[in-house]
Amino acid sequence: MKVKYNLIHKDNFCNARYGTLETNYGTVETPMFMPVGTKATVKMLTPDELYEAHAGVILANTYHLWLRPGEDLIDKAGGLHKFMNYKGPILTDSGGFQVFSLAKPKDITEEGVHFKSHIDGLKLFLTPEKSIEIQNKLDSDIAMCFDECPPYPVTFDYMKNSVERTLRWAKRCKDNHKNENQSLFGIVQGGEFEELRKFSAIETAKMNFDGYSIGGTSVGEDKPTMYKMIDYAIKYMPEDKVRYLMGVGDPVDLIEGVKRGVDMFDCVLSTRIARHGNAFTRYGKINLKNLKFREDFTPIEEDCDCYTCKNFTKAYIRHLVTCDESLGGRLLSIHNTRFLIKMMEEIREAIKNDSFLEYGNEFLEKYNSKK
Amino acid sequence: MKVKYNLIHKDNFCNARYGTLETNYGTVETPMFMPVGTKATVKMLTPDELYEAHAGVILANTYHLWLRPGEDLIDKAGGLHKFMNYKGPILTDSGGFQVFSLAKPKDITEEGVHFKSHIDGLKLFLTPEKSIEIQNKLDSDIAMCFDECPPYPVTFDYMKNSVERTLRWAKRCKDNHKNENQSLFGIVQGGEFEELRKFSAIETAKMNFDGYSIGGTSVGEDKPTMYKMIDYAIKYMPEDKVRYLMGVGDPVDLIEGVKRGVDMFDCVLSTRIARHGNAFTRYGKINLKNLKFREDFTPIEEDCDCYTCKNFTKAYIRHLVTCDESLGGRLLSIHNTRFLIKMMEEIREAIKNDSFLEYGNEFLEKYNSKK
Repeated sequence: MKVKYNLIHKDNFCNARYGTLETNYGTVETPMFMPVGTKATVKMLTPDELYEAHAGVILANTYHLWLRPGEDLIDKAGGLHKFMNYKGPILTDSGGFQVFSLAKPKDITEEGVHFKSHIDGLKLFLTPEKSIEIQNKLDSDIAMCFDECPPYPVTFDYMKNSVERTLRWAKRCKDNHKNENQSLFGIVQGGEFEELRKFSAIETAKMNFDGYSIGGTSVGEDKPTMYKMIDYAIKYMPEDKVRYLMGVGDPVDLIEGVKRGVDMFDCVLSTRIARHGNAFTRYGKINLKNLKFREDFTPIEEDCDCYTCKNFTKAYIRHLVTCDESLGGRLLSIHNTRFLIKMMEEIREAIKNDSFLEYGNEFLEKYNSKK
Repeated sequence: MKVKYNLIHKDNFCNARYGTLETNYGTVETPMFMPVGTKATVKMLTPDELYEAHAGVILANTYHLWLRPGEDLIDKAGGLHKFMNYKGPILTDSGGFQVFSLAKPKDITEEGVHFKSHIDGLKLFLTPEKSIEIQNKLDSDIAMCFDECPPYPVTFDYMKNSVERTLRWAKRCKDNHKNENQSLFGIVQGGEFEELRKFSAIETAKMNFDGYSIGGTSVGEDKPTMYKMIDYAIKYMPEDKVRYLMGVGDPVDLIEGVKRGVDMFDCVLSTRIARHGNAFTRYGKINLKNLKFREDFTPIEEDCDCYTCKNFTKAYIRHLVTCDESLGGRLLSIHNTRFLIKMMEEIREAIKNDSFLEYGNEFLEKYNSKK
């Protein structure tokens, strides 16, 4: 089936919205955070640990799966869900973000993008049609259009050409999308230019995609600029479709995104910082390698309901991290994933009670206090 | 409490024996395999995954925990069980094995062993008293005597002196052992010399330890020599105490050890080979990196009851291992740990039915067939 978004309640005091998204694998609530399973594995975690964290949709990367193990193998396995044994909805990106980071300017053509594999330097060519063909075979629940991902900053003219190309590519993606069981989302680009975000949003919406995302907001600009980009885009995006802010998932940005009306987020941050010994807490990020945790026999967060906090102390996790024992990064990944998902649960409750602004302000005040 | 071994049934056709061991953390059945949790973590696995694998006793390394995080910290945490949150029995080794591999011959004295930390080169000195003091603080259920671990091969005279020193050290260990809640095991040494194994076994037994282990059998000798060493030692070891063959845990050696009357085994092999992509199967070891598993959408073993085999295919695990995704090593560690523990469950059943020799022969025939 195609996903169906139901807008259930808009907060009375801001653009935050509570809704549900019906998918092939059940109905999930929004706003939501999607853990990233780059290579068909959310790093270090099993599907069961994701269920236990109350994960809804997870994300997998088309570029990485195209290279290894290849979309044909995953197709033979019966699709991505069966291959990785995840019984929840999966969204795949288009591969564009990775490919543009590997390509030189001259290798970007109207037809597609030439680049070399990051694994062995093999010359490859990714086009809108190919990206959709791969995603069709991966059989994710939601596929993304292949868009141009320009660097930041660029000139207005550069961005205008890029936005127009992304629209032409979006049409090619739509025309080539064959998987009836898979939804296809369009992507709004336009950088920091209000006029182009508006143009991109309106023209993309005309193509009637199953959902829409905001792209190009996590490419190195400062935070106020990122929030501005969201503002510019979102007011022209359809209210009756789900809205996804790509590649954003810092706790602060989750608050700022939700406030502006975003429904879906993804980010590798929670698991990446975990592998480097960091944990999210209500009072900001902490690094477990810090000597002050050596004799701290309390959990990362006393009131956290994750497996890690219910079973292990900071002193023990510090020991694991210090000794490069992978269980350390795993326990931190469990906590950080649950932290963001729990945060979204609270956010949804706040929206239902028209108190999101209050929730957000309280959260940010604590989070930035670095107790 | 001190552990209590109950010999319940001896196989009618060989020395294999079925029994139980009463510990602070419940009664476990023998023969058993103990997963190794070197630094207070069985690599990549949580305590819950160990319970799910039906692990009984696990082993932790005194040398590693002495260095990091230090026995005083673990003492403050309330002991090793609380520190790592393992609610089953734990055995600690003495540190001797690691220390002797780091020391030069001139650094081995009657008082103890001088050596340098493998982490930062810090000069350290480990004595029988110190080893026991550390283990007392770790508060494991079973502590091991600090013994001399000679290289292989050595002359008869060298080994004789070494065995005599190990006996003097055993007495010092016993005299300094203060933890009423912890058992202390003696270690039978003597290399490949029948006379010395006999002498060591008889003299060690006279000291009335809570259990006995056979040491120095995994130091590079060939397999027939290892089995000979077990034979020489075991016939002089008390029948009413549990017998532990240190550092041995290859499936073939488990069969050969049980046949000779061994009750406890430990080995890092199952988790170490897992991290390199290998899995135990009834038909021998396989390496999941092998191309032939690329499109193999069956579990490692169809009839295995482990989490890995119930949920994932060889093709998926191969993908993880190929991409260096740590979930691969973790899933293989789960399987390999369960494989050895399941094998011991079958072994115990076979002994109860006086059919261990048959079981062992069938197992070895399959295992060596490399289907």
